[in-house]
Parts: sequence; structure tokens; C-alpha cells
Amino acid sequence: MTTTEMPPPSPASPNHAESTRTGASPHGESASDLSAMQTPMNDWVDAGDGEAIHQYMDTLTPADRAWAMSHLDNDRQTALLQCLHPDAAADLLHTLPEVQAAGVMATMQPVDAAAIVHELPSDQAADVVGHLNQTEAEAILQELPAREAEQVRTLAAYDDNVAGGLMVQEMLRFAPEMTVGQVIAELNEHADRYSDFDVRYAYVAGDDGRLVGVLPMQQLLFVKRARTLGEIMIANPLSILDTTPLDELAEFFEEHHFVGAPVVDDDGVLVGVLHREAVQWGEARRAEADYRKSQGIVGGEELRTMPLWLRARRRLSWLSINIVLNVGAAAVIATFQDTLQAVIALAVFLPIISDMSGCSGNQAVAVSMRELSLGLVRPSELMRVWIKEFSVGLINGAVLGGLVAVLAYAYDGNPYLGLVVGVALMVNTIVAVSIGGVVPLALKRFGFDPAVAAGPLLTTVTDMCGFFLVLGLATMLLSKLV
Amino acid sequence: MTTTEMPPPSPASPNHAESTRTGASPHGESASDLSAMQTPMNDWVDAGDGEAIHQYMDTLTPADRAWAMSHLDNDRQTALLQCLHPDAAADLLHTLPEVQAAGVMATMQPVDAAAIVHELPSDQAADVVGHLNQTEAEAILQELPAREAEQVRTLAAYDDNVAGGLMVQEMLRFAPEMTVGQVIAELNEHADRYSDFDVRYAYVAGDDGRLVGVLPMQQLLFVKRARTLGEIMIANPLSILDTTPLDELAEFFEEHHFVGAPVVDDDGVLVGVLHREAVQWGEARRAEADYRKSQGIVGGEELRTMPLWLRARRRLSWLSINIVLNVGAAAVIATFQDTLQAVIALAVFLPIISDMSGCSGNQAVAVSMRELSLGLVRPSELMRVWIKEFSVGLINGAVLGGLVAVLAYAYDGNPYLGLVVGVALMVNTIVAVSIGGVVPLALKRFGFDPAVAAGPLLTTVTDMCGFFLVLGLATMLLSKLV
Repeated sequence: MTTTEMPPPSPASPNHAESTRTGASPHGESASDLSAMQTPMNDWVDAGDGEAIHQYMDTLTPADRAWAMSHLDNDRQTALLQCLHPDAAADLLHTLPEVQAAGVMATMQPVDAAAIVHELPSDQAADVVGHLNQTEAEAILQELPAREAEQVRTLAAYDDNVAGGLMVQEMLRFAPEMTVGQVIAELNEHADRYSDFDVRYAYVAGDDGRLVGVLPMQQLLFVKRARTLGEIMIANPLSILDTTPLDELAEFFEEHHFVGAPVVDDDGVLVGVLHREAVQWGEARRAEADYRKSQGIVGGEELRTMPLWLRARRRLSWLSINIVLNVGAAAVIATFQDTLQAVIALAVFLPIISDMSGCSGNQAVAVSMRELSLGLVRPSELMRVWIKEFSVGLINGAVLGGLVAVLAYAYDGNPYLGLVVGVALMVNTIVAVSIGGVVPLALKRFGFDPAVAAGPLLTTVTDMCGFFLVLGLATMLLSKLV
Repeated sequence: MTTTEMPPPSPASPNHAESTRTGASPHGESASDLSAMQTPMNDWVDAGDGEAIHQYMDTLTPADRAWAMSHLDNDRQTALLQCLHPDAAADLLHTLPEVQAAGVMATMQPVDAAAIVHELPSDQAADVVGHLNQTEAEAILQELPAREAEQVRTLAAYDDNVAGGLMVQEMLRFAPEMTVGQVIAELNEHADRYSDFDVRYAYVAGDDGRLVGVLPMQQLLFVKRARTLGEIMIANPLSILDTTPLDELAEFFEEHHFVGAPVVDDDGVLVGVLHREAVQWGEARRAEADYRKSQGIVGGEELRTMPLWLRARRRLSWLSINIVLNVGAAAVIATFQDTLQAVIALAVFLPIISDMSGCSGNQAVAVSMRELSLGLVRPSELMRVWIKEFSVGLINGAVLGGLVAVLAYAYDGNPYLGLVVGVALMVNTIVAVSIGGVVPLALKRFGFDPAVAAGPLLTTVTDMCGFFLVLGLATMLLSKLV
């Protein structure tokens, strides 16, 4: 799972009680001040002075806290969390990217890590634990109360991109027999506990845990205190199955202008609340992951605070696949080595043809990814997309091929050289946009991640095809070229 | 501006009143049914039968509406909007990507387009108008009431990625002299008007329009009806300047667990409300735009429903820059043409070296983009990033260079060929990750978009450098190679 920073906190009851207007960044210019602070930070960590660190961290914005933490070496990051109170450590972890938070947790004593997990909201606890390997996760969960561990296990087991992985468990949840008066009293009495909850809706569940109703809280303003929730709630509300994938969640919230919706399991038991913003956060995370994948960060998310060997190994895992693909493209050149030696000017134009075709193909991939995510094209519409791409490829191929043909003629003075490279680029542009446009749909249709269509895989295929076209055509026209 | 689908509607008061559970996609399997419907759709549009279209559209989910609309040809999309009631047309436009909505509006009669703009919420009206060119936009705005046109102009003038471009104007807004009883009466009386508003907070502004307070609506539950808002509101609340950029907005909402915050202009006048989810939507949009840019979709967003010539031209605008860059790389080969002809085996390894280095560089770009967006690295920390990248480059360069050296020796039997390509790939890997890691920071520092560091620009530089290293080394060792 590639992931990003912690999910948004449950929509909170803001307290607007602070004064002054924001607008200017709290940091940015303060980077050098922070750098100057790293030395005392190191000293405090080495001395185990949790109090001094806590006081200093309190003066920073969350972004500055994450920055300061990231600029400690790995051992000191662990030591810092160990010497803070678990509550403060949980606050700090919340500002870090999940993958970094999990990395530090993995290096701590399980009992200390468990104390911090205990302080995290259930969904964040699950996200951090979900980033650990099985052994690390179980070592920490063993140290938690059995029921809490079970809850974290359940949440962590959900895929990141389904309703269960995006929902929160914190919600106003009442029995249908409760009266309006009891609910208001409960809210006033436990105002602290509910301060982080979304208080616009209460969810009503029976003794068996099944969802039976939803109550817009403002309705409490207009009804008698003696009435029960069962009487005034909206019965049989819309709910979301916990395994519903992100695409369908986005559609759900597009269709219904809800701020949140109850999540139920197969038995209709209320298991959480999914907020609209969590779905949007999930979409941002996926777009970022798509970007990273297209750039070859596929062995797992990387931050430069991670150990060097891990970083090098993850990048190499992708590069080593790529070098195998590249050998395939090189083999095409090796096959036509004699033609190339006879017409060495061809070597000048090979990289232009391979690179331009790769660019054209990547453009087509990006448009397909976009249309898929907007729902404007269905994975089954291969033919429609291919026709649309073919026509663009024909125009762009003709323009680019013509341009390269002129360049080649100007370089070498032989019109046949222009003909060979021009035709090769034109045909290869059509091939590239066809593959680039159609492959993401085909991948999606068969349940694969369409984002991997872009990048080296596409490039290698268009390289091979481009080299083959140039050198194959040149071999056919060899007598005109030498 | 590259943009995505319409911004989220203002957090609405959901009505959970519908029954049945969701989970299975409403479409997906229904694609063929929809395809079958396209023929009657065409007939209805040609006959101008707005009623039949309206009834049919009502049976579809928003995603299916967008799909059905996108599968009409351009003329019919225009005709469809013209024959619907402006209210229904506005609903339909809302389901389309902004860029597509604007495209259709541009082809309509300005007076018809204005009738639809009039029905859109202010922020969506501004987004659509913001996608039109100056002439098209003014033609439509001329047809609107002067005050409404001015409002749209003001909103459309904001950059998409600042508070003013992300906020909504729809909010509960009251004078400080109003009593609690008056507010409750007003809410009940105009429940319809407020049904799309976020009703968790009311904003209190004086006669001069300046923000003076914020009121959590649940507080109305606990106070006497005779008290005025001025007495019970939170005075001098935190607010956001309308020109605050997205990065700072994300930090603001990370630091403060607000669901929304009032937006003010330079004079402190309340101009809108920014919701947390709009900021997250803005970040998703930016991540998607980064992805598109890295894939070479830079001349403006493309959808395959756009006219062929526009699509071809936009893609070509980027490809034609790229071909110029490629000629630079080709020039390096041309310079060393004699060496290449003497040692033709080098030609087999040139694409491997250029492609592998490009991949390594893109990985480094992706990590820098990620760390920048998480705030884990500041644009000024060039040296820190360079050191981190250099060490990964050294390891990966040695591994990949060694691998290629063995391949070259196996292919040609000459150890010096292995030496040349191995050293070239090792050095070029270090160059590529250094450039890829550092350039995004430098671009950001000087106010440019760091996303453009990836892709063809980087690739071309690493191509040139790679070709130069291979062919330069080979020229030096020419006597050992032939």
C-alpha cells in the first residue's frame, strides 16, 4: 500500500476562539531558525529530556514539527518518541506521513509502541499498524488490551481504498429508546469526549448493533424532550457497505449531497461513519500514488529519512525490471547492427524516434487515466478510445514525421534517409498513442492498476517498435541509403 | 489552469430519507444499456425534445449522466443544453468536468448560456466562466444582471489554488443585533434556501461587511431566545485571507481542526467560507495536474470529447518543444559519429544508458515532489537533498553499471567495451538522481512549478550527458575498442 500523510481527523467541532488572522505562512522563512534548533533537539533527545522537547514542539506548527522530526537521524527519532509521554508522542506521530510513523514504531520496544497506539484514534492506529509487517504488528498488538487489539486488527485488515479503510469509528451513536432529553444531557455531560466528533448527525443502532436510523442533530432544536429517537429519526437510512471501493464511494457522494454516511458490514451492523472529506482525501492519495508509480517509485513509498540501503533497494527493484526491458530494445538494434554500421547517420535519429514516441504514448496514457477517473469512459470502450487516439496519432505523426524527415535530409542530404526516419516516426507515433490510450482501459478491465501502463513499460515497447521500424525500413532501402 | 471536475458542493444538509443500501455500482454492468440508449438520445436532441431527455436523465446517476453527455457529438451536446430548462441544464453541467462544461457553454448562444450560469451556485459559475476566454466570458456576463455578473467576475478572477478560488459564498450570515429567536425563525422559514448550506456555523458580519464573529449553531440549543448573536458569538475569530495559497491552507487545516473557516479580503470584509473538504479537493486536483504534466499533457486539459484539431494541437505544443530538446541529444551523437561507426556495438548500449538514467532521475523527482508536498523538505535544502541522492546514486549506479558492463562484455567479448558503458552508466546515474532530486526544490524556490522538472526536460539532459559519457570515453579508449 502506498500511502500519504495521516487521514483527516474526524470533522471536529472547531473552536474559533483564537484571535488574529492568518495568511502569511507560519514557517518558510523560519527554516533557518529551525535548522539552528536541531542541535539542542539532538542534545535533548540524547539526554532523554522529554519535557524540554514537549515544550519546544508545542511552539511549532504541525508542519514544522514534522520537519523537525524528519531532520533527526533514525535512532534519535526512536529515542525521541520513547522519551515523550505516549499522549504527546501520539500527537507527534499524527503529523508524520504514515509510512514514516510506522517506520519509527517498528524500531521501538513493542510495549512503548503499544502505549502510543493506545492514544491514537482507532482509524489512525489501524493505518500505522497496517504499514508494519505481520511480526512487528503482532508484537505491538499483543501489548494492547485484547478488545482494542481486535478493533485495530479489524480496521487494519481493510484495504486502504474501501469504505472500511477510510471510515472513522468515532461517532454519535445512540439506542432508539433514548429520549431527546437524555441525548442532550449526554452531550452536555460528555462534551469533552464528543469534542472531536462530527456532531451534525447521530446514528441509531439496536441492541444487535444493526443500523436502524439517522438523526440530523439540528432536529433536536424543534422537538419535545420526551420523544424517543426511534420516533423522530429517519428510519432505514442509506448506508454504505464496508467493502465498497473508492470509485463507487466517490460516485455515492457525487450523487448524494451527504457530509457523511453510515458504514455497515454484511449483516447490516453499524461499523463506522464515512465522511465526504475522507473520500476526497482517499482520491488525493490515489492521485499521488499514480504519480509516484508513473515516475518509477513502485517498490513502496520513499522518504529521504529512510535508511540508505532501503531506499537504494526499493529503487533498484524497479530499475532492474527496467534494464531487462531495455535489453529487449537493445536486441533490436543488435539485430540490425550491419545496417546501422552501413548508414551511421541513422544512429543520430534513433533516440529522437524512441523518445518522441514515448512522449506521445505517455500523453495518451494520461488522457485515459483522466477519463477513467472521471467516469467518461468505461473500461470496455477499447475501440472508441482507439479510434480517437488513432486520429490524433495520424495528425501528430504526420507533423512530427515530416519535421524529422526534413531534419534528416538537411543533416545527410539523402532524401531516402528523410523518408525512412519520417515514416518510422509517423507509424510509431500511431502505435504509441494506440497502446498508450488502450492499455490503461484493458488493465482496468482485468482488475490491474491502470497507472502502471505509463512509464518504462510503454517506453520500452515503443522503443523496440521504433528501432525496428527505422532499421527495418533502412535495411529494405539499403541500396538507396549507402 | 488545469482543473478537474466541479468543486464539491457546499457541505449540504443531507437527507437520509431514501431507503436501500448501496454497495454495488449503479453502473459498470449497465454500460451496454446506456450505449443502447444513445440512439434515442440522439433522436430526442435532434427533435429538441427537452422533456424526454430530462425524464431519461433523471433515471441516471450523475456519473452515468456525464457518460451519456460525453458520448454525444459536440453539436448535439450544445443542442441538448439548449433544449433543456436552464435549471436542468445547470444540474447536468454540474456533473461534467469544468473544462468540458466550459467548452459546451462557449458554443451556445450567450443569452442561453447566461440563463444556465444564473442557475449555478456562485463558485461553480465562476469556475466555468474562468475556463472561457475573455471574449466568450464577457459575452455571457453581459447577459446577466450587473450585480451577479460582477460577483462571478470577482470569483473568477481568483487563482484556482488560493482561498478565494476554493471558497463558497453560500453561508449562514447574520447581523450581530439579531436574536437567537429571530435566527431560529429565519432558519425555519427559509429552510429551502438553506438546505444546501453548511449549517454547523453561522458567520456574523457588521453593516460594513466586516467579519465580527462566528457562532457554532448547536449553541442555539443552550441559550435563551432573547439573547443577541453579538452576545453569544465567538468574537474576533480566526479567518483566512482570500489570497492565501493552497499549501498554506492545507497547513491551516492541519493545525486547526476546523470544518471550515471564514474568508476575508484585505479590509477584513467577509467574502466567503472555505471548507476543509474544498482544500482537500484542491490538493487532489493539484496532484492530478502534477501527474498530467509529468506525462506531457501541458497545453491544457484534454478530454476525448474535444474537437480533434484542438486535441492534436495541444499535444503537439508539448511534443514540438520536446523534439527541439531531442535534437540537442542527437547532436551529441552526431559529434561522435566516427567513434560510433568504428565501434558499432556502442549503438546497442546507447538506449539502455539513456533510458536507465531517465528512470533513475524520475524516481528522484518523485521523491522530491512528495517531500515538498509533505513539508518534510524546504526548497532551500538543496545540499541536504543532493547528499541524500548522491549516496543512492552511487549504490544504484555501481549496481546498474556493473550489470551493463557484464552484458557488454558478454555481447562483444571486449572488456574495454564493458568498462566504457559501465562507467558511463554509473556516472550518469549519479548525475540523473542529483538533477532529479535538486531541480524540483530549485524550481519551487524561484516560484516555478516543480512538477515540470520531471519528464522530457530531465530525460533530455540525462540523454545528452549519457551519450556524451559513452562516446567521449569510447573516443579516449578507441585504440582498445577497435
